[in-house]
Amino acid sequence: MRVKFEEMKNEIKRVFMKYGMEEAKADICAQIHTESSCDGIYSHGLNRVARFVDYVNKGWVDVNAEPSLEKAFGAIEVYNGNMGPGVLNAMFATNKAIELADKYGIGMVGFKNTTHWMRGGTYGLYAARKGYVALMWTNTESVMPPWGGKEVKLGNNPFIMAVPTKGEPVAVDMAISQYSYGKLQVTRLAGKKLPYPGGFDKDGNLTDVPGLIEESMRILPMGYWKGASFSFMLDVLGAILSDGIGAVDIDKVGKGSCGGASQIFIIIDPKKICSEDKIEDTINKAIGHLKSSELAEGFNEIYYPGEDFIRFRKDNLENGIPVDEGIWKEIKEL
Amino acid sequence: MRVKFEEMKNEIKRVFMKYGMEEAKADICAQIHTESSCDGIYSHGLNRVARFVDYVNKGWVDVNAEPSLEKAFGAIEVYNGNMGPGVLNAMFATNKAIELADKYGIGMVGFKNTTHWMRGGTYGLYAARKGYVALMWTNTESVMPPWGGKEVKLGNNPFIMAVPTKGEPVAVDMAISQYSYGKLQVTRLAGKKLPYPGGFDKDGNLTDVPGLIEESMRILPMGYWKGASFSFMLDVLGAILSDGIGAVDIDKVGKGSCGGASQIFIIIDPKKICSEDKIEDTINKAIGHLKSSELAEGFNEIYYPGEDFIRFRKDNLENGIPVDEGIWKEIKEL
Repeated sequence: MRVKFEEMKNEIKRVFMKYGMEEAKADICAQIHTESSCDGIYSHGLNRVARFVDYVNKGWVDVNAEPSLEKAFGAIEVYNGNMGPGVLNAMFATNKAIELADKYGIGMVGFKNTTHWMRGGTYGLYAARKGYVALMWTNTESVMPPWGGKEVKLGNNPFIMAVPTKGEPVAVDMAISQYSYGKLQVTRLAGKKLPYPGGFDKDGNLTDVPGLIEESMRILPMGYWKGASFSFMLDVLGAILSDGIGAVDIDKVGKGSCGGASQIFIIIDPKKICSEDKIEDTINKAIGHLKSSELAEGFNEIYYPGEDFIRFRKDNLENGIPVDEGIWKEIKEL
Repeated sequence: MRVKFEEMKNEIKRVFMKYGMEEAKADICAQIHTESSCDGIYSHGLNRVARFVDYVNKGWVDVNAEPSLEKAFGAIEVYNGNMGPGVLNAMFATNKAIELADKYGIGMVGFKNTTHWMRGGTYGLYAARKGYVALMWTNTESVMPPWGGKEVKLGNNPFIMAVPTKGEPVAVDMAISQYSYGKLQVTRLAGKKLPYPGGFDKDGNLTDVPGLIEESMRILPMGYWKGASFSFMLDVLGAILSDGIGAVDIDKVGKGSCGGASQIFIIIDPKKICSEDKIEDTINKAIGHLKSSELAEGFNEIYYPGEDFIRFRKDNLENGIPVDEGIWKEIKEL
C-alpha cells in the first residue's frame, strides 16, 4: 500500500506526541521521518517509529531533554545531547554549525551523549539546501569486525557529504559497512543473493549469501581493510572532537543503537570561496563527465550521488509512499 | 639492496637541486620523499623522484613557484599553488591551516592549481605530530570508471585522517580505488592474483587477475558504488572549496598526474575540546577494543590505522630502506 506524505506525517506526529513529545518537536521529528521514507530511505523513516517509541518506553531516549553547551572556542562548539531525541539534537547541531560558518566560513559542532539521528543524510541535505557544504558523521555501537578479526569491534559510522546546487543538493550518506543488516535480511527473505560479497561466513569464506553473514556477524567494511580503518578513525575522531565516547563505551551504555553516540557536524560556506555560478558549473561539469561514460554491461544509466533521492521523492510525493501493511497497522495502534 | 635514510635523502636532495630547486626547499622535499620510502610507501618516495624530474623538464612543475593568497575569510584561506612543487605547497597549506586552527579551533585551507603532493599521509602525520587532527584530500585526473560505466571518469582522490597520540599518530591515508595501478603491476609481475577482486575485465566480469584490469582500465572503487560516490564528492568539494578545478578539467590541463589539482586541508585543535589524557585514553581504548577480537583465519594480528608505518619505519631506519637497484642507479645518474 502507499500512504500520502501528509497522512504519514500526521500519524507519526500523533504517535510522538502520545509518547510525551511536545507538538513543535513532534512536528519536526515526524517531518524528518516522513521525508526519509519519501526519499526511499525506508529503513530510517516510518519503519523506525516503533523502535523509537520502544526506546522512549525503556528510558533510553529522553523525549524532553534539551542539548546543553559544554565548550566553545572560535569556530567550534561542543554540546551534551543529554540523551534527547537524536533527530532534534542533530538539527540543533546543524543550525549551530551553520551560524559558526556564517561567522568564520567554517564551523564545527561536536555532540556527545546523543541518540540515533535516524537518516544522517537529513542534516547534510538540510544544510546544503541552505547553501552550505556539509561533512558529518556519527559513531555507533560495535557492529562490524576489524580487518583480520572475527568479532564485532567497529561501528558502521555513517559519513555524510553534501554540496549545494541551484536545484537539489548533491549528497552522499554512506554507512561504512558494505551492506546494512537490514539489506541482508530483505535479501534473505526474498530468497536472493547479494549483488557482491557482503561478509565472511563462520569459516572465514567471503560470501554473497546473506543468511551466512547474519549467522557469523562478520559483515564486510566497504573496501575491506580500507573501510575498517576509515570506520576506526570516524569512531575515535567522533569521540575526541565531541569530548564524548567511542564504540567500546557505547556498547557499555546499553541503551540501544547509537545510545550515547558522538556526532560531528562540519559546515562550510562555499560562497566565501567561490561564486554560486562557479559552484553550479563545477557540479554540472562533473555530473556531465560521469554520465558521458559508456555504460557498463547491465546498466541503463549512471547516477550521481543523491540523484536517487530525487527520483524516489518525485514518485512518492505523486503516488504515495510505499508502506508495509503490517508496519502501518502497528503505527496506527501505537 | 637497502640504503640508509641519510644517504637516500642526500641523493634525492642533490637531484632536486640539480634540477633548479633552492637548497632549503630541496631539503624539505628530499626529507619527505625519503620518509615516505622509510614508512613503507615505496610508490611515493624514492620511486617518484625520476618522474618529478621528468615533470620539471617538461615544464609541468615550476620548481621555483610560490603559492599566492587568493582569498581569506575567518578560518578559511584559499591559495593558488601556481603549479609549484606539490610537496612544498601542501606543507605550506598544512602550516597555514594549523595557524587558523590555533586561532579558531578549526581552520581550512583550499589550494588550487597545485601539483602532485606525493604521499598525502605526510601532511596528516605532520599535523598530528604537532597535536592536531587533520582531514585532507586531493582530487586527481580521471583514473576510475563511475559505477555503471566503463570509461575512467573519477579520480582516486586520496583521503587522509590523522589524530595525535602521545606517541606516533594514528592515521589513514587511502586512495578511493581498491588497488592502485602500481599494486596491479607489482602483482602481475609476481605472477599472482589480487587478494580480492580489484576491477572488471573488458567484458564486465569482476576479476582478481591484475593484467585483465590493467587492460580494461576498469579499476574498482572501494565499496563498489559507495567509493564511486565518495570519490565524486571529494572531486567536486576539492574544486569548490579551493575555487579550483575537478577531474574533468585536470584531464584537460594535461600536465601529468595531479597537474592542476585542488586540495583541501582541514585542521582541528582537539585540545580546545578535550584534554590530552582524554585523547590518549580514547585512542588506547579503541585500539584495545580492536585488538581484543578473536583473530580471523589466516591472520596473526589486527593492526590499527598507521601501525604499519611505525613498523616499516623502525625496520628501515635500523636496516636501511629497501631499494630497487635499477631505480637507485637511475637516481644516481640523474
